[in-house]
Amino acid sequence: MAGTNRSDENRTGGPAIILVEPQLGENIGMVARAMANFGLDDLRLVNPRDGWPNEKARASASRADHVIDAVQLFDTVEAAAADLAYLLATTARPRYSIKPVRGPEEAGGELRARITAGQGAGILFGRERFGLSNEEVDLADEIVTFPVNPAFASLNIAQAVLLMSYEWMKSGLGEGAAPRFQAPNVVPAAKEDLYRLFDHLEGALDTTNFFFPPEKRESMVHNLRIMLTRAGFSDAEVRMLRGVLRAFEYRIEKDQP
Amino acid sequence: MAGTNRSDENRTGGPAIILVEPQLGENIGMVARAMANFGLDDLRLVNPRDGWPNEKARASASRADHVIDAVQLFDTVEAAAADLAYLLATTARPRYSIKPVRGPEEAGGELRARITAGQGAGILFGRERFGLSNEEVDLADEIVTFPVNPAFASLNIAQAVLLMSYEWMKSGLGEGAAPRFQAPNVVPAAKEDLYRLFDHLEGALDTTNFFFPPEKRESMVHNLRIMLTRAGFSDAEVRMLRGVLRAFEYRIEKDQP
Repeated sequence: MAGTNRSDENRTGGPAIILVEPQLGENIGMVARAMANFGLDDLRLVNPRDGWPNEKARASASRADHVIDAVQLFDTVEAAAADLAYLLATTARPRYSIKPVRGPEEAGGELRARITAGQGAGILFGRERFGLSNEEVDLADEIVTFPVNPAFASLNIAQAVLLMSYEWMKSGLGEGAAPRFQAPNVVPAAKEDLYRLFDHLEGALDTTNFFFPPEKRESMVHNLRIMLTRAGFSDAEVRMLRGVLRAFEYRIEKDQP
Repeated sequence: MAGTNRSDENRTGGPAIILVEPQLGENIGMVARAMANFGLDDLRLVNPRDGWPNEKARASASRADHVIDAVQLFDTVEAAAADLAYLLATTARPRYSIKPVRGPEEAGGELRARITAGQGAGILFGRERFGLSNEEVDLADEIVTFPVNPAFASLNIAQAVLLMSYEWMKSGLGEGAAPRFQAPNVVPAAKEDLYRLFDHLEGALDTTNFFFPPEKRESMVHNLRIMLTRAGFSDAEVRMLRGVLRAFEYRIEKDQP
C-alpha cells in the first residue's frame, strides 16, 4: 500500500479507477482522458501488459498528464483495492447474481454517498479481451452493469470508464442542478407591445390580398394572433418583427406609381 | 431528403446522429460502435473530410456494420436534418445562451418524449477541431452540453455520442412505460420546411432595406433564425407565415413601375 498516499494532497477525492491487466497503452490513455473530463484523477493499474510508464498511454491521454503522472502500479487487485472501503466490479453480464447489481447511475449515487461519508471507494474494470475473472469479481462488494443493447454489448474499457466517470460527476450535481451555463429565461414582451405588433401586421396585410376572401379575415386574424402569442416573443424580438414589417411597408410605399 | 427512407424498415427508431464534417474515419467508426451499443442506427454524415465509404471507419466500428452500411451522406446540415421535427446541437461552450440548454439526461428524456409522440429527432455533433459553427447551432431547437470538468472539458466526438446514446437508452428504462417528459402539444414543422421559411424571409428582406448596413446582415439573419426556431412553429403556422411573405411579395411585384 506504499503508493496510496503518494499524491493525496492533489486528489479531488473521487473514486479510484482500477484497470486489471490492461493490454493497450492507448486504452490506458483514453481512460485517463475520460477520467479528467469528469474530474477523476486516481488511476490504478494492476499488471499492465506493456509495463509502466507507457508513452502510448501518455500520447493518447490528450494532455491528461496529471492523471498519467499520478498512476499507481500494483501486482494484485487485492493490493490495488487495499485502502478502499467500497469496491464495485464492472461486468458485461450479471454473472454474480448473488451480489447486488446496479446500473451506472445508481452506482454513481452510491459512490457519492460512500465518499461523502469518508469511505474510500473504487471501481474495477477488466481486461480488454475477457473482463474480470470470477475471483476478481468476488473481491468487490457490488456489480455494475451497463444498459447496453444485448445484440451489441461490447463496451470498450475507456467507454466503460467514461460512463462511470460521467455518472460520478452527475451524482454531485443533484436534482435540478443548474447546467454549466443556463439560458436566461426569455422574458415575453409586455402585452401592449405584442398587441401593437398584431395591429401593425394586420394593417400591413390589409394592403395586400392576404385576407381573401374578406369573410375569412376574422378567422385568419385569430390564427395569426394565436401563433404570435404562443411564440412568446421577447421585447427585442417584437421590435425585430416590427422592423421586418416596416421594411416591407417602406418597399411597398416606395414602389407606389 | 432522398435518402431518408432508404432503410427505414430496419430502423429501431431512435434519434438520428448527425456528424458535421467529421475528419477521421476512426472517429466515425467509434461513433457507429457507440450507437450500436445503445441501440441507435441512424447515422448521417455531412461532408466527411475523407469521403465515403471509408474503410477506416468500418475497421474501427468493431462490427457495427449495420450502422456503417446504413450511413446517409448529405451536403448540408439543412439537408441532413430536413425530415426531423426536433434537433439538438451539442456544444462545449455557452455561445448561444438564448437557446434552451439541457444536460444529457434531460435531453435523453426529451428525445424519448418527442420520438414516442411520432416526431423525428436528431442530434448534431461538430467537427473534431472546432465543433459547430454559429450558423449550424442556429438550425437547432436546443443545446446539449455535458457536465464536464471545466479544467478539462474536451470530449471527443465518439465520447459525446456515447453519452447521448447511453442517455437515450436509459430514457427508455424509466419507471413504468410513461415518458418522464411530455412532448408539447404543438408538433413542430419538419426542419426542411422551417429552413425554407428562413430562405424565403431572408430573400424577401434582401429586396428591402432591412439588412442595413450590409455588414450587419449576418448577425441580423442569426437573430431572425434564433427567434423563428425558438418559436417552435407547427407545419400550419409555417405555411401561414409563408403566405404572409407571399402577400407582401406579390404586393411589391405588382407595384413595380
